[in-house]
Amino acid sequence: MDLSPELLAAIEEARGQRHETRRATVPALEARLYTPIPCLDHGFVRVIDYMGDDGAVVQAARVSYGKGTKTTRDDRGLIRYLMRHRHTTPFEMCELKLHVKLPIFVARQWIRHRTANVNEYSARYSVLDREFYMPRPEDLAVQSRNNKQGRGQTLDADQAAQVLSLLRADAMQTYDTYSALMDRFDLARELARMDLTLNFYTQWYWKIDLHNLLHFLSLRMHPHAQHEIRVYGDAIGEVVRDWVPATWEAFEDYRLGGAFLSRQALTCLRRMLDGEAVSQEDSGLSRREWREFQRVLRGGAEGK
Amino acid sequence: MDLSPELLAAIEEARGQRHETRRATVPALEARLYTPIPCLDHGFVRVIDYMGDDGAVVQAARVSYGKGTKTTRDDRGLIRYLMRHRHTTPFEMCELKLHVKLPIFVARQWIRHRTANVNEYSARYSVLDREFYMPRPEDLAVQSRNNKQGRGQTLDADQAAQVLSLLRADAMQTYDTYSALMDRFDLARELARMDLTLNFYTQWYWKIDLHNLLHFLSLRMHPHAQHEIRVYGDAIGEVVRDWVPATWEAFEDYRLGGAFLSRQALTCLRRMLDGEAVSQEDSGLSRREWREFQRVLRGGAEGK
Amino acid sequence: MDLSPELLAAIEEARGQRHETRRATVPALEARLYTPIPCLDHGFVRVIDYMGDDGAVVQAARVSYGKGTKTTRDDRGLIRYLMRHRHTTPFEMCELKLHVKLPIFVARQWIRHRTANVNEYSARYSVLDREFYMPRPEDLAVQSRNNKQGRGQTLDADQAAQVLSLLRADAMQTYDTYSALMDRFDLARELARMDLTLNFYTQWYWKIDLHNLLHFLSLRMHPHAQHEIRVYGDAIGEVVRDWVPATWEAFEDYRLGGAFLSRQALTCLRRMLDGEAVSQEDSGLSRREWREFQRVLRGGAEGK
Amino acid sequence: MDLSPELLAAIEEARGQRHETRRATVPALEARLYTPIPCLDHGFVRVIDYMGDDGAVVQAARVSYGKGTKTTRDDRGLIRYLMRHRHTTPFEMCELKLHVKLPIFVARQWIRHRTANVNEYSARYSVLDREFYMPRPEDLAVQSRNNKQGRGQTLDADQAAQVLSLLRADAMQTYDTYSALMDRFDLARELARMDLTLNFYTQWYWKIDLHNLLHFLSLRMHPHAQHEIRVYGDAIGEVVRDWVPATWEAFEDYRLGGAFLSRQALTCLRRMLDGEAVSQEDSGLSRREWREFQRVLRGGAEGK
Repeated sequence: MDLSPELLAAIEEARGQRHETRRATVPALEARLYTPIPCLDHGFVRVIDYMGDDGAVVQAARVSYGKGTKTTRDDRGLIRYLMRHRHTTPFEMCELKLHVKLPIFVARQWIRHRTANVNEYSARYSVLDREFYMPRPEDLAVQSRNNKQGRGQTLDADQAAQVLSLLRADAMQTYDTYSALMDRFDLARELARMDLTLNFYTQWYWKIDLHNLLHFLSLRMHPHAQHEIRVYGDAIGEVVRDWVPATWEAFEDYRLGGAFLSRQALTCLRRMLDGEAVSQEDSGLSRREWREFQRVLRGGAEGK
Repeated sequence: MDLSPELLAAIEEARGQRHETRRATVPALEARLYTPIPCLDHGFVRVIDYMGDDGAVVQAARVSYGKGTKTTRDDRGLIRYLMRHRHTTPFEMCELKLHVKLPIFVARQWIRHRTANVNEYSARYSVLDREFYMPRPEDLAVQSRNNKQGRGQTLDADQAAQVLSLLRADAMQTYDTYSALMDRFDLARELARMDLTLNFYTQWYWKIDLHNLLHFLSLRMHPHAQHEIRVYGDAIGEVVRDWVPATWEAFEDYRLGGAFLSRQALTCLRRMLDGEAVSQEDSGLSRREWREFQRVLRGGAEGK
Repeated sequence: MDLSPELLAAIEEARGQRHETRRATVPALEARLYTPIPCLDHGFVRVIDYMGDDGAVVQAARVSYGKGTKTTRDDRGLIRYLMRHRHTTPFEMCELKLHVKLPIFVARQWIRHRTANVNEYSARYSVLDREFYMPRPEDLAVQSRNNKQGRGQTLDADQAAQVLSLLRADAMQTYDTYSALMDRFDLARELARMDLTLNFYTQWYWKIDLHNLLHFLSLRMHPHAQHEIRVYGDAIGEVVRDWVPATWEAFEDYRLGGAFLSRQALTCLRRMLDGEAVSQEDSGLSRREWREFQRVLRGGAEGK
Repeated sequence: MDLSPELLAAIEEARGQRHETRRATVPALEARLYTPIPCLDHGFVRVIDYMGDDGAVVQAARVSYGKGTKTTRDDRGLIRYLMRHRHTTPFEMCELKLHVKLPIFVARQWIRHRTANVNEYSARYSVLDREFYMPRPEDLAVQSRNNKQGRGQTLDADQAAQVLSLLRADAMQTYDTYSALMDRFDLARELARMDLTLNFYTQWYWKIDLHNLLHFLSLRMHPHAQHEIRVYGDAIGEVVRDWVPATWEAFEDYRLGGAFLSRQALTCLRRMLDGEAVSQEDSGLSRREWREFQRVLRGGAEGK
């Protein structure tokens, strides 16, 4: 991750600020403010602003429940109760604003989360830098056999080198063309950009409330998410853990670490607890569901 | 506006906080934090938290426009440009969180703005206070003749007194019943509440981004909005003016103080500027549109 | 449910229509079109329009998955796969439009579902009818002891009669005042309406996509939802079952009939399947969570 | 526009359907159903389904206004009134579902409209075809001098040929690599796709309500929109004109053909109508605003 001198200066200036405020602050997140967390080879996530903390979730919930409940439950317990029962609106009372630099093909997955605010760098307006994503050799893998949208075994070193060489050559080539189109032909930027490959980096400001952010993370930190977006999901997860630790703990217990069992799976389970030996054939579950069910019972990745 | 001792204590405690932050702060809004602005007879609006300032709008816009634009336009100019050309996404990068106490019939209009986060006091869970809205005599008016959803002339003092007496009697009566249903019959709160009239006060935490807030204000500060919600719109307008003064100025120039002219109105205008005397009959405008058009040209309330 | 002559005529006229279309149609839903399903004493739900069917879900999913997948899974299997893995966007490709008549306090819960379109009868513009909700005696119950937002035992017949008499008297009284305010004082409708109690009926057109509708139903058909809104949830559930039977079946198996188990509950479960006797004290679950867990294992209402 | 045999067969089959329905139908839109409208060199828009018509807008508005208004205004007048006063919710009661094939860089602009439902072809799951956008020579233009995000003069024929040759070579080259990565190295599709340039075609199902569609069109049919997305905007505009002719007429009069004047512009206008000669210098408008204002008064493109 090489940062431009302008960005480095902006980060330093922003981190040097000290203001007094009556708002809730989170020292662990203040310590992270503006500093980029590297993601992939040239990307990053950095926290630009935040609103609220665990206390803001509790505060909003208590408006709903009215007076008289303040003493009966402590804050952590209330947050766990809200998460368990999917009372989601109090979590919407916190906001996080990030500056993200990411490959275009990752941006295209990310933007499907519609309940967020976005300002993206415009390649109609400005010229993109010569920065494109090159996977690490260990991230190059063959098409998965049992998951049509996943990857399987890692490529061997020689093949990986060949793949990277092909990817690099095309990215270099298309960027040269992109530059030439603008420099030699004065072609409009909004046209020239169409020649770039999908691994070039873009960037945006992205703002989202805590409830929708947790939903984003539950999908994008999931083992089935594409590796390249999971890197960002994991980085943001670290940020959220620092920001709202009680909410994060509840999220791990009642979302990430739990599993949903279907009606048929619950029926199987009851038979098993009664001492019956249940096989896939008489379980009412498809083979695929049965495999997922076994994984939940054995305690591997949860139902995924 | 009588505040409960609990709320007074919470306000005092919150206002006593002093934290250090690296985030953007707005001193004029810090000064307002947590303090209720009275609205109607028992209602209020108070700022609980905020994210961003005019600078955050500029910052987000500059991500979009990329490097190279920083020196050519100053911040105020850029904000005015964004507002004029309805580039709305940078304004979504700021958030305001309010605690609002308001009559239920006002809450029912307010909630139609869907792009916001809400946590409302639950009358399933808790008991509502004996607080209901009584209009001031000068706010009691007859049904408008030319606007089916508006009010016309103010009632005379004697009639106003009779109306208020009827309203008060019913509110007192239904609250007595509400209490009796719970106290004498132990009726579930979720059932008892149905007996209350629509002027009883409820309260909520309400969070919204600046773009959607300006849209809310353009509708709810409008002369055609019902007086009771306009009181809240005006109070929030004052808050926004303090919070993001450059955005507010642009909003006044390019929204509140401007007017939209239809294709037919523009055609009329061109004829008039050519020196032609145009009458409603040969204007292509309906009588009602013509009146609105005249009002725009004369400079009264803008096209409303 | 007494319908106005205007509405009866509109229903009859609409049901008499016969058009030819190339769009997907669902005969079982066509048979229901426009006919009110009674809800509570004066309310109803009626289907006004719909877009799509089970096939439209499949069709949208296959755009995502591209060619080559058409033969490997049949439609029902694909719908079950989508529901199980929470691939929600294909379900957004169907829409349902309802006309609903409902008490105001029910409307206030309902409107919290923001991802829907609403046009409500305006009491600023028009006069409301003298129609208010009176619970059946068997629906009157005391405040729940263990659920702060629920109801417990049913009232005895004598008490129920007294409660209904109080509710009826207040509704009659406030409607008389409402009428008098408009008739004797010509008070603006937007003011007069504040005197009505929350059990008066309002009505609206409500349009929502199938994914968000299922989310609405999972909350509003839930045993913890207030009885009065559950009546509407159940009625709409019947409609959806007729409209998209394969989706409904999957929804029952993978949502309504299933249960989410937390990380701690899964750990307990694994110990139990290993033959260990686990008690609440050494389960890592709170007493309340333990009770919910036992209910899931025994097969009562699912984790609710 | 070359359509695959599968798609041609699907279109023919769908167009051959004839069902009976009680729902509102629009014969002019039925005639268009499923048939692709060519856009750019390989793209298209085709209507897959629709809900509602002009009558559905009126119907929803009349729920709001209650009984008694049915006779006073005819439908067209009511629709014009709603559009003029920005009463937007009745327009949300109609839906349109489209199948769109479009270059990825166009899809990236399009997806910013968040209030819509999308199912996009997944290049994680399936292989993209060798189809990329090549502009027509007359659409190749230099960077605009006065609009940082626009294009200016068309390239001369020789330069255009060189530009197209460069674009074509890169697209062919990257597609060859893309194929080789999958065929020779069995690289996962989710990785291989990153090598494609942004002018490759993708496709999606896209569903949106009429209000949000008109907002989309007002931005994407605008002279300042990029040519390539405007081609789609114009095609959809034709569809909407056929679908809801009264709404379209009102949209042209009160949106597309009208103009918003700022507070300062209105002040100028009043001075001019009073016979005063106003110049930019004493107008209170910036040079750019003054140019836009003059364009509105002269009747060219409306304030754009």
